[in-house]
Amino acid sequence: MSPTDVPADVLVPYSGLAERHGPWPAGVTVHVWDGETPGSVPPQEVLDAVGFWVMPYAVPDAHRLLARLPHLRAVQSLSAGVEKLQPLLPANVALHNGRGLHDASTAEHALGLILAAQREVPRWAADQRAGRWEPHFTRSLADSRVAIVGYGSIGRALEARLLACEAEVVRVARRARPQERVHAVDELRDLLPHVDVLVLVLPETPATRGLVSTEELAALPDGALVVNVGRGRTLETDALWAETRTGRLRAALDVTDPEPLPAEHPLRQAPGVLVTPHVAGGSASFRPRAERLIVEQVRRWGAGGELLNPVAPPRAETTTGPASVSVAAVRPEA
Amino acid sequence: MSPTDVPADVLVPYSGLAERHGPWPAGVTVHVWDGETPGSVPPQEVLDAVGFWVMPYAVPDAHRLLARLPHLRAVQSLSAGVEKLQPLLPANVALHNGRGLHDASTAEHALGLILAAQREVPRWAADQRAGRWEPHFTRSLADSRVAIVGYGSIGRALEARLLACEAEVVRVARRARPQERVHAVDELRDLLPHVDVLVLVLPETPATRGLVSTEELAALPDGALVVNVGRGRTLETDALWAETRTGRLRAALDVTDPEPLPAEHPLRQAPGVLVTPHVAGGSASFRPRAERLIVEQVRRWGAGGELLNPVAPPRAETTTGPASVSVAAVRPEA
Repeated sequence: MSPTDVPADVLVPYSGLAERHGPWPAGVTVHVWDGETPGSVPPQEVLDAVGFWVMPYAVPDAHRLLARLPHLRAVQSLSAGVEKLQPLLPANVALHNGRGLHDASTAEHALGLILAAQREVPRWAADQRAGRWEPHFTRSLADSRVAIVGYGSIGRALEARLLACEAEVVRVARRARPQERVHAVDELRDLLPHVDVLVLVLPETPATRGLVSTEELAALPDGALVVNVGRGRTLETDALWAETRTGRLRAALDVTDPEPLPAEHPLRQAPGVLVTPHVAGGSASFRPRAERLIVEQVRRWGAGGELLNPVAPPRAETTTGPASVSVAAVRPEA
Repeated sequence: MSPTDVPADVLVPYSGLAERHGPWPAGVTVHVWDGETPGSVPPQEVLDAVGFWVMPYAVPDAHRLLARLPHLRAVQSLSAGVEKLQPLLPANVALHNGRGLHDASTAEHALGLILAAQREVPRWAADQRAGRWEPHFTRSLADSRVAIVGYGSIGRALEARLLACEAEVVRVARRARPQERVHAVDELRDLLPHVDVLVLVLPETPATRGLVSTEELAALPDGALVVNVGRGRTLETDALWAETRTGRLRAALDVTDPEPLPAEHPLRQAPGVLVTPHVAGGSASFRPRAERLIVEQVRRWGAGGELLNPVAPPRAETTTGPASVSVAAVRPEA
């Protein structure tokens, strides 16, 4: 694909990129649409010339612009998960995801959720406002065993942080990689009794939807913490509610199902449950990383080269039954 | 000091130590007092025989037992900071502190406070209960520059966690150690304009009391976060209140002055201020480390050897005026 046979113009969500990162390549015209300013949509003659669109991040209705981009050939999403966007694209539009842009931010938020839960930050914050000063011992992250389910780039970034906190890590991915001490997700049921913290960092696919439900939660020890920074539907909400309303399990969720979590949803009031509104990827460390990717992609677009982070079409996946396992934990001294 | 010329008995705060860690040395009788059960004080004839007392941790009135321990020769505190206990001890009683026992717990809590503040956990927790779902971008810890003032064992434990979170660290201690990139506290005023997060991990001494006050806070950039996990009096409360009530600075405090922070204290309601009730050292990772120290100290006591972690008598210290500095930041890739 080169600018000679498709519309060469690019639509990006940030202004000032050329000023901050150097001039755009020759032959490429770059327009800006941030998706947030009402009435700011470029005129149709501009949209007609756009071949490559970098979508604004975390703007829920941004995809509506697709109907007004008739000559689009490539889309760059700044999200790592594109399962909702993918079905909306015409077959001749190549999709590229934001893999890596959110690693630091998401891993950091996951760590913040784990620490907030283990060290009872929400309780202390409420006590602070209510005038109480009632210290007690809390759980810790140090010496805890944390299973990371979805051991990709975010999982690795989280692992580095957890090991520095003197926690053990159990790696779980789609397929086992014994030489890297990665368990297959098929073994999850047998691993769960041995973990203190279960962290889900999964994309939503047919194989991951509802992956953690009643039986998986029942396998966790009393007091275990369930963390989700991936996609809400990988964890069954009703099953989690049943285990948290009694206080047997705790949870810290950045993603939910449904999402947003309705105002009256009982999970919001469950003891030991902390919910943040899908903000793991959206912190200050995201923007500089996003800008660097956009600039590189526009450079490649202008040169007619292959764009980074292509997303393959979705395919169904299945998991097979569990077998008994020995836990290959990664320890801080490793 | 040996069991032959002083009372040999030991008083410890935990029961079951011998069962968990092996038998006590010959000739040493160990009694238990946890300081928390009303009416549980051992009879006076037992207290008369105690030469070495391991004080219960975080029991405010425990020191009152000193009046009933006439033949005491050595005290083990499980706290790292013993500035309040030290003046209460007779001159012939050797004091030993809990250096190291709280490193993992305190560093972890400091990290939890920083992440809670940067990623706005208290706000999300309040939104959760109130039925709101209003995501927005937050600050991050990644890419931030954090000054650790009090670069001892807790500071080093915190640094390891911060570097794993892709933050930069500026080390500050009493004296400069340029070869280790440690700044002297004299340089603090000149370092402050260049840091995003200021963490105090200081003991209370004449030199550290009120170390951070109006001028130091004024030197911090807008939006900076002030964290205290050391001792409350090292940070002047009124000065902090003046900078946080306007929202210019933020704070996350595990220790305060006065402490407990009174129920009606305005700092409790200041925007961007998070307070926890002196719980940094008191988490699950403390107990196993404390037990290992107690068992080792009783073994040494029984053998007539020197106990670990002796505390020297206090002495006054002064700081000298600041000079202009270049910031020697320690970066994640280091």
